[in-house]
Amino acid sequence: MERIDDLQCGLKVIQDTELFCFGTDAVLLADFARVPKNAKVVDLGTGTGILPLLLYARQEEAAYFGLELQEALCSMACRSVEMNGLADKITMVRGDIKDAHRFFGNANDVVVANPPYEKEGDGAARGEESHRIARKEVRITFDELCESAARLLKTGGKFFCIHRPARLPELFGAMTRHGLEPKALRMAHPYIDAEPKYVLLCAAKGAGAELRVLPPLVMRHTDGTETEALQQIYRRERE
Amino acid sequence: MERIDDLQCGLKVIQDTELFCFGTDAVLLADFARVPKNAKVVDLGTGTGILPLLLYARQEEAAYFGLELQEALCSMACRSVEMNGLADKITMVRGDIKDAHRFFGNANDVVVANPPYEKEGDGAARGEESHRIARKEVRITFDELCESAARLLKTGGKFFCIHRPARLPELFGAMTRHGLEPKALRMAHPYIDAEPKYVLLCAAKGAGAELRVLPPLVMRHTDGTETEALQQIYRRERE
Repeated sequence: MERIDDLQCGLKVIQDTELFCFGTDAVLLADFARVPKNAKVVDLGTGTGILPLLLYARQEEAAYFGLELQEALCSMACRSVEMNGLADKITMVRGDIKDAHRFFGNANDVVVANPPYEKEGDGAARGEESHRIARKEVRITFDELCESAARLLKTGGKFFCIHRPARLPELFGAMTRHGLEPKALRMAHPYIDAEPKYVLLCAAKGAGAELRVLPPLVMRHTDGTETEALQQIYRRERE
Repeated sequence: MERIDDLQCGLKVIQDTELFCFGTDAVLLADFARVPKNAKVVDLGTGTGILPLLLYARQEEAAYFGLELQEALCSMACRSVEMNGLADKITMVRGDIKDAHRFFGNANDVVVANPPYEKEGDGAARGEESHRIARKEVRITFDELCESAARLLKTGGKFFCIHRPARLPELFGAMTRHGLEPKALRMAHPYIDAEPKYVLLCAAKGAGAELRVLPPLVMRHTDGTETEALQQIYRRERE
């Protein structure tokens, strides 16, 4: 069933638990990504359109484009954009990530993606088809995603994504294979003494090799309460 | 000038400030590496022989071999081994890492390396030749090191090393190119809110792709005192 959620930053988003709801990972990625003024920004696999919305809340002076394969999700994202009165700022397009350059050209400044984390064969294939497509590499692999991102970006343009730390060697491999040089990395740990749940990555098209590893993001204290660092990320959303 | 340093674990090491002295990185790597009982362990570029000594202090029931190119360092390492009465446990060999398989065969269980961190051209080429060889990729690149480690290891054997986080994508690339699959990673941060100074890596020959990223190692509190985690690492040395 559809519902409208307040993003606490003056914006709202339509979600549907049966299709897809955004999670902490989208919030972390929106915080990690840097959108320069007047940038052209493409979100590959935008789902509910959450990333363009959160990014717009941080940088209003940019042109945002969301690409979504699934009709139902794309329609929901379009309605979210209209509901927020942002039709002149955020454009939703229904289509395949592999065809993204046909829609958005090759001179974009920023590409963001919150892609499926799991390989197609991994784990049980439970749940609705729309969940499977969002969570598993059924329709696109990370390598194909990098190929598409590299095609969309101008030289020096940035690709921001979030993924599972367990796949880091493969992620770096796919990026560099397509001319996207990893430039920044941040691990997000549920607790200070826990293994990271997410890795945030920034790659630049055609850049030299030198990775900046940022201090870890610790999300919660051992008593379960949110750390100041996580609160700040959420607060920026709420401002 | 040569001096004898107490390793606080019943062992001593001869060092020479004009040639090379071991640092925190050797201690971190000795703590990170896991040596199974009865393993055959090779240290590529052993310097003063510090790694075989520290590893022996943790696991006495293994056969250790150190390979060192520089005559003066190798001689010092040999004398350290004799001084500790470990000539039947640790064998020092003078030679080139590229020829390591000729000395040690291809059925080793563990290879460790604390290699030069910097590319040959990076930074000023100050200091003695022995420092340059230990710190810069003058005589061996990381790719060549991985090639040698892969040749030495039996299938499933482990390669442990420490390096600069800035070079992580390249390190993973070199490892996988030579059939060494990255299996564990730990970042060592000077402070909780600082970028990591070192990355500790474990790769396994011929293993499947799945990286375990460990909780960060934070070395000092903001007031400069050692954290419990770092103290534990040093304490294990001193036991």
